[in-house]
Amino acid sequence: MTDVILVLNAGSSSIKFRSYAIEGDELGLGLHGQIEGLFTSPRFIAYDRNGDQAGEKRWGDGTALSHEDGIQYISQFLTTHRGDNHLVAVGHRVVHGGEKFTKAVLATPEVVDELDKLTPLAPLHQPHNLKPIRIVAAMHPDLPQVACFDTAFHRSQAELAQAFALPESITSRGVRRYGFHGLSYEYIAQALPNFSKRAAQGRTIVAHLGNGASMCAIDAGRSVASTMGFTAVDGLMMGTRCGSLDPGVMLYLLEELHMSTQAIEDLIYKESGLLGVSGVSGDMRKLLASDAPRARFAIDLYTYRIGREIGSLAAALQGLDALVFTAGIGENSAEIRRRAAAQAAWLGIELDAAANDASVPCISAPSSKVEVWAIPTDEERMIARHTRAVVDAL
Amino acid sequence: MTDVILVLNAGSSSIKFRSYAIEGDELGLGLHGQIEGLFTSPRFIAYDRNGDQAGEKRWGDGTALSHEDGIQYISQFLTTHRGDNHLVAVGHRVVHGGEKFTKAVLATPEVVDELDKLTPLAPLHQPHNLKPIRIVAAMHPDLPQVACFDTAFHRSQAELAQAFALPESITSRGVRRYGFHGLSYEYIAQALPNFSKRAAQGRTIVAHLGNGASMCAIDAGRSVASTMGFTAVDGLMMGTRCGSLDPGVMLYLLEELHMSTQAIEDLIYKESGLLGVSGVSGDMRKLLASDAPRARFAIDLYTYRIGREIGSLAAALQGLDALVFTAGIGENSAEIRRRAAAQAAWLGIELDAAANDASVPCISAPSSKVEVWAIPTDEERMIARHTRAVVDAL
Repeated sequence: MTDVILVLNAGSSSIKFRSYAIEGDELGLGLHGQIEGLFTSPRFIAYDRNGDQAGEKRWGDGTALSHEDGIQYISQFLTTHRGDNHLVAVGHRVVHGGEKFTKAVLATPEVVDELDKLTPLAPLHQPHNLKPIRIVAAMHPDLPQVACFDTAFHRSQAELAQAFALPESITSRGVRRYGFHGLSYEYIAQALPNFSKRAAQGRTIVAHLGNGASMCAIDAGRSVASTMGFTAVDGLMMGTRCGSLDPGVMLYLLEELHMSTQAIEDLIYKESGLLGVSGVSGDMRKLLASDAPRARFAIDLYTYRIGREIGSLAAALQGLDALVFTAGIGENSAEIRRRAAAQAAWLGIELDAAANDASVPCISAPSSKVEVWAIPTDEERMIARHTRAVVDAL
Repeated sequence: MTDVILVLNAGSSSIKFRSYAIEGDELGLGLHGQIEGLFTSPRFIAYDRNGDQAGEKRWGDGTALSHEDGIQYISQFLTTHRGDNHLVAVGHRVVHGGEKFTKAVLATPEVVDELDKLTPLAPLHQPHNLKPIRIVAAMHPDLPQVACFDTAFHRSQAELAQAFALPESITSRGVRRYGFHGLSYEYIAQALPNFSKRAAQGRTIVAHLGNGASMCAIDAGRSVASTMGFTAVDGLMMGTRCGSLDPGVMLYLLEELHMSTQAIEDLIYKESGLLGVSGVSGDMRKLLASDAPRARFAIDLYTYRIGREIGSLAAALQGLDALVFTAGIGENSAEIRRRAAAQAAWLGIELDAAANDASVPCISAPSSKVEVWAIPTDEERMIARHTRAVVDAL
């Protein structure tokens, strides 16, 4: 009989799952997979602990599954394949913990209701994150569930790093810089001692470059600043998000172009970034393979802005010991790492070209004043760790 | 008979004027002053070339003067006091030259009409800047007038520094980072050779800290990046402006707080910054004299954000040779310079405390890796120089 923790990471149209076997101090990845395209063309795929396909299903175009349907399907799949496993807890990724939730918590109905009140701060994500908690609670009222927050890791930041220069009538409503991707940064911070004492104990910038992208300044393991702000649209240029934008542009879109709030939201979240600038794709791999001038410009802008933000975060850290690349683009694109590092050459950063091409963990040259690393992140494992810790403390 | 250039700098409720005598290669400041409170409580004051008061008038509370009235009054005053002066041209500060106007130009009726079309890009300022040109043209159709732009100096920036990560359907309308305070930065860039070869030829950040505030990265005299963007509300925290703001906050104000566009504009332009954060005042002198915790927090946030932007601009410059403080706060507040420089200590900046307290031009310690200067700016003199050059080339 093996105790297992299930991690659910639910988005607007997808549910990722990962089960972890509790093996002494370790967590062993077991069955994992996802349902995508819930409302349009649902498809399920699962893999076992060896990475071999363990299940697959397609419902066909035009079929609509609800989140309930999806979780039911995953639940049945796991029950069928459970062997001698015993589910002891479910951990969930929740994008927003607001000012109050500074660490993972047991997701009681009262807590979920409180988290629901944060929906105005993250209307596009929070409801999708909370739905699975309620669905699982209805199915298994006695099963402990744990909410793990993308914001919690950043609550160690000084007030100055979290403040906007707005009046208290606005900021008292919770309008501040929360920062996101916290589970990824926390995973990297916990992993750093395995790679480098200097990076773990010093001033480190982590670049989480995925479809969403942000950077975090970490001082001796604690977040001191991050590029994402009140929402996940601020900061770096992303696949389809614009990142930092003069608020005067928002007024211009409203007053001069007479755009609706919804149209502006679509513009800055879904039609900007790499996709909007290139006019080609929001997928970095496609842009890197393209000869279109606007595709090249989009990549240049992407790395230029990383370079500017590295400067800003180095100021927050008062110097720089290490730069870590992670997430899809950060882990896999030697070309983007090369360009981003070139933007930071003034800080004494030098890459080892061969190491960078091979994506081995340490990719800086021995002469580099700043260590540079490419380290895979694992947000789900971080959720599993939090979930175990919360359950162990019950 | 002395040839004189008149400089007019018109805002929404004030008109500043300065006359300069052409004395060989030099421009000698003559009569100068302003009318303030045009529509509420107009008051005029003027000084002669020695700084002695040369005129004063108050119209009383509740009196409303138009811009026409104001310029008429200034014109009559100058005519009465002209001695043997001969007015050869009028130079105007115009906030926005768009993408087209990369340097000062003769403000023909056609040019003014073209500049009028840029009003959507700067609705709060552009109309006030253009009105005096038309008023003077009506009074003196044959008098050459020159439009000098706050944006022109920044047109040397690379496309990357001017681009937002928005789709071309938006950026093709002129939505880009223009940068402002360009006449001030250009004046400083022209003054730098008198102070330091390294600062003039190297990588220099100029901090224009007035009621409006921005910073500019200047490489060998050319602007390469600036903190103000599409509008003058972006970038640094200012007296009443918020500076950089997550665009997601704008959506929150619209969707969750149901604020009108006008209310949001007032919020970010007039009720934020030092005033909004402190709840006390938008005047740095008052905040520095206050013991209120929120006043202290406002000052801390102001200098923290300068520090972050210095890092970002140093990245644009790939290093830093000099930091220059200018404009009201930058020229006069040793305390703000001290705090801002402390935020940049990681770049090797060290102040000479006594020099800083005395606001002598060079305020860095001999051991400082980066030169630090406090240099008065003079936008009106820059306008006079441009005006003379344009007229000389006719």
